[in-house]
Amino acid sequence: MDHTRAPLFDRMLEHRKLQSTSFHVPGHKAGVGIDPLATDVLAAVMSIDLTELTGLDDLHQPEGVIREAELLAADCYGADHTFLLVGGSTVGNLAVILSMCQKGQNDLFIVQRNVHKSIIHGLMLAHAQAVFIAPQVDAATGISTGVSLIDVESALKQHPEAVGVILTNPNYYGMGVNLRSIIDRVHAMDKPVLVDEAHGAHYGFHPEIPQSALFAGADGVVQSTHKMLTAMTMGAMLHLQGNRIDPQSVRRHLSIVQSSSPSYPILASLDLSRRQLQLQGRSLLGNALDAMNRLQQNMATTMPWFQVIGQETTTKDSKVSQVPHTTQATQVQASHTPQAYTTLDPLKITIGDRTGTLGGFELQHQLEQHRCYPEMADPHYVVLALSLVTREQDIDRLLLALRTISIEFQLDKQELSLTAKHSFTYPPISDPVSFSMQPILTQTAHADADLPYIEATIKEAVGHVSLQAITPYPPGIPILYPGERVSVAVAEQLQLWIQSGARIHGLTENGNMRISRS
Amino acid sequence: MDHTRAPLFDRMLEHRKLQSTSFHVPGHKAGVGIDPLATDVLAAVMSIDLTELTGLDDLHQPEGVIREAELLAADCYGADHTFLLVGGSTVGNLAVILSMCQKGQNDLFIVQRNVHKSIIHGLMLAHAQAVFIAPQVDAATGISTGVSLIDVESALKQHPEAVGVILTNPNYYGMGVNLRSIIDRVHAMDKPVLVDEAHGAHYGFHPEIPQSALFAGADGVVQSTHKMLTAMTMGAMLHLQGNRIDPQSVRRHLSIVQSSSPSYPILASLDLSRRQLQLQGRSLLGNALDAMNRLQQNMATTMPWFQVIGQETTTKDSKVSQVPHTTQATQVQASHTPQAYTTLDPLKITIGDRTGTLGGFELQHQLEQHRCYPEMADPHYVVLALSLVTREQDIDRLLLALRTISIEFQLDKQELSLTAKHSFTYPPISDPVSFSMQPILTQTAHADADLPYIEATIKEAVGHVSLQAITPYPPGIPILYPGERVSVAVAEQLQLWIQSGARIHGLTENGNMRISRS
Repeated sequence: MDHTRAPLFDRMLEHRKLQSTSFHVPGHKAGVGIDPLATDVLAAVMSIDLTELTGLDDLHQPEGVIREAELLAADCYGADHTFLLVGGSTVGNLAVILSMCQKGQNDLFIVQRNVHKSIIHGLMLAHAQAVFIAPQVDAATGISTGVSLIDVESALKQHPEAVGVILTNPNYYGMGVNLRSIIDRVHAMDKPVLVDEAHGAHYGFHPEIPQSALFAGADGVVQSTHKMLTAMTMGAMLHLQGNRIDPQSVRRHLSIVQSSSPSYPILASLDLSRRQLQLQGRSLLGNALDAMNRLQQNMATTMPWFQVIGQETTTKDSKVSQVPHTTQATQVQASHTPQAYTTLDPLKITIGDRTGTLGGFELQHQLEQHRCYPEMADPHYVVLALSLVTREQDIDRLLLALRTISIEFQLDKQELSLTAKHSFTYPPISDPVSFSMQPILTQTAHADADLPYIEATIKEAVGHVSLQAITPYPPGIPILYPGERVSVAVAEQLQLWIQSGARIHGLTENGNMRISRS
Repeated sequence: MDHTRAPLFDRMLEHRKLQSTSFHVPGHKAGVGIDPLATDVLAAVMSIDLTELTGLDDLHQPEGVIREAELLAADCYGADHTFLLVGGSTVGNLAVILSMCQKGQNDLFIVQRNVHKSIIHGLMLAHAQAVFIAPQVDAATGISTGVSLIDVESALKQHPEAVGVILTNPNYYGMGVNLRSIIDRVHAMDKPVLVDEAHGAHYGFHPEIPQSALFAGADGVVQSTHKMLTAMTMGAMLHLQGNRIDPQSVRRHLSIVQSSSPSYPILASLDLSRRQLQLQGRSLLGNALDAMNRLQQNMATTMPWFQVIGQETTTKDSKVSQVPHTTQATQVQASHTPQAYTTLDPLKITIGDRTGTLGGFELQHQLEQHRCYPEMADPHYVVLALSLVTREQDIDRLLLALRTISIEFQLDKQELSLTAKHSFTYPPISDPVSFSMQPILTQTAHADADLPYIEATIKEAVGHVSLQAITPYPPGIPILYPGERVSVAVAEQLQLWIQSGARIHGLTENGNMRISRS
C-alpha cells in the first residue's frame, strides 16, 4: 500500500482549492465568520473544517477517502479493521464493550481493576456485570501495573460465562505486562480480549519500544493517537483482528456514541499521523529515545537525588551508594525488589524525589514555575510524557528546571531516604485476587437520581457504599467504583490525594461523598 | 455579566504566550511535530490544542475558566445551566435522555417520530421504551414538521407513566411548530420536555428569527453551535432550565459519553461563538437576512420556475400565474393549503424545480458543478444553509449558478407543473396518531449480533421486521426503526431515495436489509 499518501487529508485540500461557496454546515463558512481575535489560531483549521460533502465520504459508513485512510491505518498497525475515532479512546472503549455483549444485559466481563473510567462507563451503558481482577503491585514503587496470568486463569475458571476480558496496557506510568500469555489463555476459551492501549499508539514501531497489544494477539485495541503521536486531541483509533469481535457491530455502536457530524480536522490529523508513523516513525522515535537517554544519564550522574522509575537501585544508608544505571527500557530486569512489570515505555519518565522534600504535586508545581508542564502527578511522582517529536531543546529546558529546583530546595545537601514509594497500592485493592461487582454499576448509571442517598464527609462514609465513582484526574482511574464499600484504607488514601492537591471527580461541591442510605 | 470576555479562549492564549515546554499530551507538542505538508492548516490550531493543565480547568468538573465560559453562555441564552459540548448535539441528546430515566430500564418516553437518530440512540442506551407521535405533514410540500398539541395530549393521556417528552424543532428544513402550548401541556403533568434544537442555535437573537425552545419553556435544549453559528464542528451546547432535569446527573452522563480528553480548540470556539452572538448577533443576523431577502426576491422575479418553500402559491394551469411574494419568515401565513408549521427559519432556503426537470439530488449536483455546495437534498428539494456570516458575494454566486442551470436545462421554456411536492410523507407514517414500540429498541442496540436474521432485498423485506435503522443521511432521520415492520409504502420510498442518489445508513454492503427471521 502507498503510505506516502494521506487520502483523506489530500482530498480535503483539494476541496479547499475549489474555493467553493458553502451553503452547508458548519456556519463559520470555512472560517470567514471567525472572531477577528481568533483569526490567527482558528482561521486556517476552519478552512478544512468540512462536513460530509460529495467526495468527502462519511465516517459512519465509509466508502471513499475515509475508508482508504482506515485501510492504510490498518495496514500500518497490522489490524484487520481500523476505525478512525473523533471522540477519543473513550468512544472506542464504549463501542467495543457494547459490541462484545451477547445478552444485552447482565453480560459478565472479566476486567482489570485499574482501567480507565471509560471502560467502567462502557460496562454501565451495557448494563453489564464485571468481575474485577486486582493488578499486581510493583514493590519498588507501590504502583499498580497489570494483572497476572494466574489471576486471569482463576477468574476464567470461576466465571466461564464471561463474554470477554478487558485489560489496560501500559498503565499511565508506561508499565506493562506480558500480554501474549494472558491473551493466549483467554483465546483458549475462545473469548475476546479488549486492550485499552491508550498510551501505546507508538508501540511496536522501534526495537527499544515495547511491542503492541495487536502483536500480542488482542482482538480489540483502542489507542489515543493524540497522546504519544501527533494527532489532534480526541483523535484516536480502534483496531480489530480475528473474528471474535464483529466489525459491523462495532461500526454500528460507534455511530451511536460518536457525533453524526465528526470533525474533519481531527480525522485529517489521524490520516497524517499514520503517514508520519509509517514513513518516519522509527527515525523520529530514535531521536526521542536519544533525548530520553541523555536526560536519564544526565540526571543519574548530576542529580542522583531524583529517582527515575526503571532505574531503581538500593540507596539505603548512603548518600549515593550507587549511581543509577540506564536500563534498557524495553527489557526491565527484575532487580532485588520484585518488579510487577516486564515492559516500560521509555517515553514516559516518572520522577520522584529521594530526599522526601518534594511530593509529586509539589514537584509538578515547581516544574510549572519553570514552564515545564508535566503530564500528571501523584502524591509521590511526576510523570513526564515525551512523544516522537520531543526535541533536544525540550530536554535541556527540563534539565535546567530540575537543576534550579534542586538548588532552591537544597536537595543535594540532604540524606537520601529510601526509594520514594507509595505507602499504599494505587488503586487500593481490598481482595488480593478478584472481587465481583454485581449490576449495581448499571443502576447507578441510569437511576442515580432516584436512589436514596445521603451526603457524608469522607470520614463518615467509611463502612458505607459509595454511589459514585471517585476518580483522581489524571490519571482517571477510579479509586472507588459506584457500589463499592468505603474502607478505612481507601478513605485515608482519598484524603491524601486531596491534601496533595489532586483534582478529584465524583465528590460533591463541598468535597463530600454520596453514600447509600441503606 | 461581561460578554466582551471569552475567558476560556483568553486563558488559552495566555498559556500559549508562556511558551512552555510540553511534557504532557497531546504528542504533537503544540504543533512542532506536525507533518510539514499540514503546517499551514494545522500548526496554528495545534498551538492551542491543550489539555487540562493548571489554570485550564476540566470540562468534566469545571471550576475555573470553563465554568466561566458556561456561565456566560447560560446568561446569553437565558438558561439556568449550560454545558459546553465537544461531541456534537449527539452527546447532549444521549446524556439528557439517560438523565431523564427513572427506573434505569423500560422507562417510557413520548417521542416525536422524525427525531434525529441520536435521540433513538439515547433511548437504546437507556434501555428505554418509546411511544412515537407522528408529526404533522405539510400539505404543500409533503414534508413532516412537528407534532400537534392534540396528539401530545392524547399520548400523555394514554401513557401517564411516561418520564418525559422529546421533540425536535425546527426540522431540517427550518420548519417549526408552536412549542409553548405543547410544553405547557406537558408541564401541567410535571414532566420534562427535551427539545433537540440542533438547527436553531441562532433562534431568539433577531426579531425576524423564530423564538427559541428555551423561551418556549423547554426543560432541556440541545443546540449545534457549529451549524448556524461559528463554532468548530462538534461544538455544541446543552441548556437546562427549571428543576425537572437534574444538572448533576446530566454532568455525570456527559462525562460518560464524552471524551476524557476534550478538544480545547472546539471549546474555545464555543466561547468565541457565544461572545460573537451576544455582541454582534443581531447585526450579523440582520446582514444575513438582507442577503436572504435579496436572494428570494431575485429568484421570485427572475426565476419563478424555482419554488422556494415559504413562498408557495398556486401555479396550476399557468406558466407563472402569480409571482411568489416574500413572506415574513417568522410568521408564515396559512395559505389555501394547510401549513403544518408556524415558524420557518429564514436562513434555511429550500428550493424545488417547478418544471419537474431536476429532482433534488440532480439540482444539488448541478449546483456543486458551479461550486455551490448545498446542505442537503431529498428527492424533490435542495436545502441551503445560510448562517450569520453569509455574505452578499455568496448570494451572488448562488444566483449566478441558478441562472446558468436554468438556461442549461431550459427551465424558463417549460410548463410549470404543480408545486413540487413529495409524493410521500417523510418519514412515512403508518398510523396517523401514534404508534408504540416496545423494548425491541433495547435488544437491537445490544444483542443484534445474536438475533437470528436473514438478509433480504428491500422488496423481499416487505411484511418483515427490520433489525436495523435505515436512515438517509443527511438528514439522519430514520425512515425505519429497528423493530419496525416494512410496509409497501416504506419500501417504495426507500427505493426512491436510493434511485435519487441518497446515501443510506443501515443497509448491508450489497444494499440489502437485515430482517428478523421470525
